Amino acid sequence: MFRQDVSILVGVTILCLLGMSTGTNYQYQIKFLDVPLDHFSYVNDSLTFKLRYLINDTYDPTGSGPILFYTGNEGDIELFAQNTGFMWEIAPKLKASLVFAEHRFYGKTLPFGNASYESPKHLGYLSSEQALADFAHLLTEINPIVPGRRNRPVIAFGGSYGGMLAAWIRMKYPHLVNGAIAASAPIRQFYTDCGIFNQILTTVFKTAYKEECASNIARSWDALRNYSSTAEGLKTLQDKFKFCNNVTKAEDITGTFFDYMNDVYGNLAMINYPYNSTFLAPVPAYPVREFCGRLAQNYTGLELINHLQDALSIYTNYTGTTKCLNIASAYDSKMGDQGWNFQSCTEMYMPMCAKGPGKDMFPKQPWDDKKYSDNCFKQFGVRPRNKAALAIYGGQYLDDASNIVFSNGLMDPWSGGGVLRSNNPSITVILIPEGAHHIDLRAANEKDPGSVIASRQIHLQNIQKWIKQHSKRRV
Amino acid sequence: MFRQDVSILVGVTILCLLGMSTGTNYQYQIKFLDVPLDHFSYVNDSLTFKLRYLINDTYDPTGSGPILFYTGNEGDIELFAQNTGFMWEIAPKLKASLVFAEHRFYGKTLPFGNASYESPKHLGYLSSEQALADFAHLLTEINPIVPGRRNRPVIAFGGSYGGMLAAWIRMKYPHLVNGAIAASAPIRQFYTDCGIFNQILTTVFKTAYKEECASNIARSWDALRNYSSTAEGLKTLQDKFKFCNNVTKAEDITGTFFDYMNDVYGNLAMINYPYNSTFLAPVPAYPVREFCGRLAQNYTGLELINHLQDALSIYTNYTGTTKCLNIASAYDSKMGDQGWNFQSCTEMYMPMCAKGPGKDMFPKQPWDDKKYSDNCFKQFGVRPRNKAALAIYGGQYLDDASNIVFSNGLMDPWSGGGVLRSNNPSITVILIPEGAHHIDLRAANEKDPGSVIASRQIHLQNIQKWIKQHSKRRV
Repeated sequence: MFRQDVSILVGVTILCLLGMSTGTNYQYQIKFLDVPLDHFSYVNDSLTFKLRYLINDTYDPTGSGPILFYTGNEGDIELFAQNTGFMWEIAPKLKASLVFAEHRFYGKTLPFGNASYESPKHLGYLSSEQALADFAHLLTEINPIVPGRRNRPVIAFGGSYGGMLAAWIRMKYPHLVNGAIAASAPIRQFYTDCGIFNQILTTVFKTAYKEECASNIARSWDALRNYSSTAEGLKTLQDKFKFCNNVTKAEDITGTFFDYMNDVYGNLAMINYPYNSTFLAPVPAYPVREFCGRLAQNYTGLELINHLQDALSIYTNYTGTTKCLNIASAYDSKMGDQGWNFQSCTEMYMPMCAKGPGKDMFPKQPWDDKKYSDNCFKQFGVRPRNKAALAIYGGQYLDDASNIVFSNGLMDPWSGGGVLRSNNPSITVILIPEGAHHIDLRAANEKDPGSVIASRQIHLQNIQKWIKQHSKRRV
Repeated sequence: MFRQDVSILVGVTILCLLGMSTGTNYQYQIKFLDVPLDHFSYVNDSLTFKLRYLINDTYDPTGSGPILFYTGNEGDIELFAQNTGFMWEIAPKLKASLVFAEHRFYGKTLPFGNASYESPKHLGYLSSEQALADFAHLLTEINPIVPGRRNRPVIAFGGSYGGMLAAWIRMKYPHLVNGAIAASAPIRQFYTDCGIFNQILTTVFKTAYKEECASNIARSWDALRNYSSTAEGLKTLQDKFKFCNNVTKAEDITGTFFDYMNDVYGNLAMINYPYNSTFLAPVPAYPVREFCGRLAQNYTGLELINHLQDALSIYTNYTGTTKCLNIASAYDSKMGDQGWNFQSCTEMYMPMCAKGPGKDMFPKQPWDDKKYSDNCFKQFGVRPRNKAALAIYGGQYLDDASNIVFSNGLMDPWSGGGVLRSNNPSITVILIPEGAHHIDLRAANEKDPGSVIASRQIHLQNIQKWIKQHSKRRV
């Protein structure tokens, strides 16, 4: 999921979700279904578009088994299909079909083709409610409810924003979805401390190797700022970091590079998996620990810059083949950052801030609601509806929800907005102490810690329970 | 609620809900709240409109008691406030505030003022999902969720389409609504036998007094048709019925008058209350019995016409002051028939048919989907989305719903689409054998049968249980 950061709305901070799997290549058919552009109004009643979805039913020879349904999030659905190995691994056991549905306005599901991102007249149809209704529409097509005949049980899956959608589709369409595995789904991020993300991120860097790591990072901002204030200093930084585009003014460092580093820290924490992975850039197992191993003593001045550059290469040049450092974006082109920016400017309003020295490892940066709103209006012609998501989805108030597993890696900065406890016996909370961003949805790996293995067992037990529950219901 | 009838889409059949109370005049403040025109898309992000709602908090001196919330349906909200005496009667006991929220595009809640019914560019924003989101928005304003502080419990109430909305707001927004009393809410009408309404209606007329009543009605259509086929016959009918506009051609009878009679039969059954009431026209207690008392033997020919006219006067001229018979409409102007027609042409798709002689008391009239759709397109520029309501709300599939009471009078023709049984312990079903359309929501009357009195007690017990449940929840 992408992080909102008031200072950097336009060149937005993105904190992404799924590591590319290494080597696995799952197979599926690609299909399209016509769905209404607007499920809730009829001003342009006849407009439809083609929703892309991926389907594999080779494990379900009778065509009557459960449907494992990935609620696609802000990116190309094939990326999610390839990176949700857990679904592929349990499908044979459950004799289940697999369906991965693409979220409107991402990947190849572009309602207005190349003109889809004209805002707000086209992009205005991008919303989580419309996307959920697309998924519901798809489910009624592939798994119709016919009185007297039992339809197939459906289990929703998703990670990050996809996990929010998985939880919400179960909450809003329980007649179509029997249960949901919502991994690293920050559905509470709408009503939480704006600094929690950076606070957890700081803890991750503090505890990965030695505490000095986080304090070096905390000091690095001023050091970089100092270097950026003179032509000589800029040259030093250029020589050290080998930026692809020469840095020529202070803002190239305090703006672009700071934003980039923010993203890198977030990404490193999210993909802090116990094995090599190749998202955005190839990284080693436990990349935060590797990173912090190079910042293990207190440094200052040029020494700090040197060590920071060395540590950064874990993320930017682990293969040793990178020629120069491109700080324009830290994200894969398959992720839809522009679409997510729009969603953040409407209902997915999740303020982020940094509390500064002593509280986290970032420069102090309060949330500025007015500035954010004005930027949204300038960029998209819309303003955030601050309370909309809470009104519509209820945030943390889950007393009446059922059949949802919320899993969170506690070393994932998004866990601050996750569901970490529940009094509701029908909501299962899984905490993965050493887990990063929805590692439990990834394919099994021999390096997985016991907590991740256990979480997948709990997922499967719940799924089997929900399927059994479905089989006992009146048709 | 208004009935869809394929043959008469344009001059539509309406089967309405609430009898006007006699004499009671409940007091409230009238307020307006700005709400977004479109809760789910952002093409016209800045557009808002004024949602009207009525509030009375005189029974809740601390301002912290429960909120009894009427989810307004297709008409002026004041009509519903005045005719839902049950809410007013329990408010003092519960120390509760009363809120009646008007449905967009009805009453005085017209998003585009006088231009609101320009279809589809304005009227296209009329939908049940948008209306529910309006209510949710209103609830978050008057009863905000603030972590650490307990908000007030909210109980939704509604009759007919309002009852559907009450059930649905509990299902879709359980974090905002603790429970719902859904009276005569045909949420299953989307997936049911198209003939069930007329079948029940026939039973009502068969059993109200003597079976001959229904068989006379069944024969009357041919008799009327015969008279309408000659100028002389038309003159006879004109003399008998004293139509305000002279009937001059067969279609005036077989079109307009047949439609009117259809409506009258439905209305009589719905308002078949055990006491005088004054909806549409003043009627005596048990008006169907009175009507049938005048058709108690088998008649044919002119004698049948005479007795039919005499019986009809129960509905059209009970006061004896009606000068002529206006068959243009059988409904009160406060009901929004045009808005409901639009809703019926989009998502509130409830096919109706008559199976004809031997099966019900109406001429055979199959449902013609294409004709209906074409009429919708001609009138509104939209076509029905046949499966939309079922996909979005789930019809009868309530396994995962909770805290809803569904009450149905079995002598109400809408009960065929109601929830009449449930395996879900958290869904209460109340059957009122002799009940008409949501009589249980009306003010207590000394003529109320025991089943109605008992149903109100069950409502209250459930409401008290839900309020107690709320008080025990984590804030």
